[in-house]
Amino acid sequence: MCKECGCGITETSDKKAIEVFEDILKYNQFQAKHNREHFETYKIYAINLMSAPGAGKTTLLEKTLELLKDKYRLGVIEGDLETERDAERIRQKGIPVYQITTGSACHLDASLVHKAMHHLPMDQIDILFVENIGNLVCPANYDLGTHLNVTLLSVPEGEDKPEKYPLIFKSSELIVITKIDLLPYFDFNLDRVKEQIKRINPQAKVMALSSKTGEGFEDWIDFVENKLKEYRQKLV
Amino acid sequence: MCKECGCGITETSDKKAIEVFEDILKYNQFQAKHNREHFETYKIYAINLMSAPGAGKTTLLEKTLELLKDKYRLGVIEGDLETERDAERIRQKGIPVYQITTGSACHLDASLVHKAMHHLPMDQIDILFVENIGNLVCPANYDLGTHLNVTLLSVPEGEDKPEKYPLIFKSSELIVITKIDLLPYFDFNLDRVKEQIKRINPQAKVMALSSKTGEGFEDWIDFVENKLKEYRQKLV
Repeated sequence: MCKECGCGITETSDKKAIEVFEDILKYNQFQAKHNREHFETYKIYAINLMSAPGAGKTTLLEKTLELLKDKYRLGVIEGDLETERDAERIRQKGIPVYQITTGSACHLDASLVHKAMHHLPMDQIDILFVENIGNLVCPANYDLGTHLNVTLLSVPEGEDKPEKYPLIFKSSELIVITKIDLLPYFDFNLDRVKEQIKRINPQAKVMALSSKTGEGFEDWIDFVENKLKEYRQKLV
Repeated sequence: MCKECGCGITETSDKKAIEVFEDILKYNQFQAKHNREHFETYKIYAINLMSAPGAGKTTLLEKTLELLKDKYRLGVIEGDLETERDAERIRQKGIPVYQITTGSACHLDASLVHKAMHHLPMDQIDILFVENIGNLVCPANYDLGTHLNVTLLSVPEGEDKPEKYPLIFKSSELIVITKIDLLPYFDFNLDRVKEQIKRINPQAKVMALSSKTGEGFEDWIDFVENKLKEYRQKLV
């Protein structure tokens, strides 16, 4: 009961809801493990791209596909609440892509990725990019079975975001600061943000780039290629 | 069972989870109604500000408080996963503010707002601003008991966001396009976005402004003042 107004209102997060949520996460872990087995069967290296809406996931992806497509066989799973827009952008590059539309769900989960996987030519893919729903909160809780979690933070979002949304920055091995061509127009100190991220996740690698000008893009491409190499060595 | 690999994986959104979610929403409705009764008791007009992370909710709020504080008694409830940063920014203006930190929860709900409310001097507030968690998905589902839902869309996020995240644009009476001082640096067509929003929510009012230059800000202030006036007339 509320002490102030005696109204009986309590906080929503009751025991039953927490239990159901824990069940969902447990089931998701089971599914994620299954996805990883699929990936290993086909020797696919899978990357989960996360960020707030409009941080530039699709644009980064387009440029990445362009730079890697002659060297590797690529595939993409797109996640959005509605529309096939992002899948269309990828399809234009001749890359196999499957669009998940979640309706109202705020994140991808391992079962959605599993379903999408079976719509792609699994035996013809070396690197699979999964573009998550634009959301800095919920995707952090759901392991998709991918090998690498990447979170993008764009300059216009502001430098206080890692401390405000720590979970997603903690759950990512790589943080990519995007749209650095816009640095002159924003009060965004790159060094300060990097230090902030290091405090939240000391293990994380942090890089900064612009998909528009190409500045810093080489580091990202090198990172992906090295990760694929390590993965293949482990599989042998 | 999965037809492709025979693995038994099914989609997560099972019956039990949907039932619990419906229960949560039903309980939230009950709480929201209770909040509205509180607001009416104290003649408070309450505004729920929603957007993606970094769309400029706090900056809009700071300027709004500056412009309205000599005319009305104001109050603020801040929502974030972590940190008191936003509350500190508001506190510096001498406005009563309460910071909710949700930990990992991706939205405010009516019970969190109810609790926060009792930490504010309710009998000394005319307009209460509630700054929701930066998230374009989840906050759309939770009525806070406020009188006005406002969604901000910033120019750097890109013009495809209303169609990709329709729910929050449907649940808002006012859409404010922010950071229009950045229009020269982005491929963002204001008219095209307005048409897109009109298709999703024909009743919504759409305005565009810059909290930095002040362009378009008068429309927003007029809108809030007129809404307060209408509310007070209805209460009499």
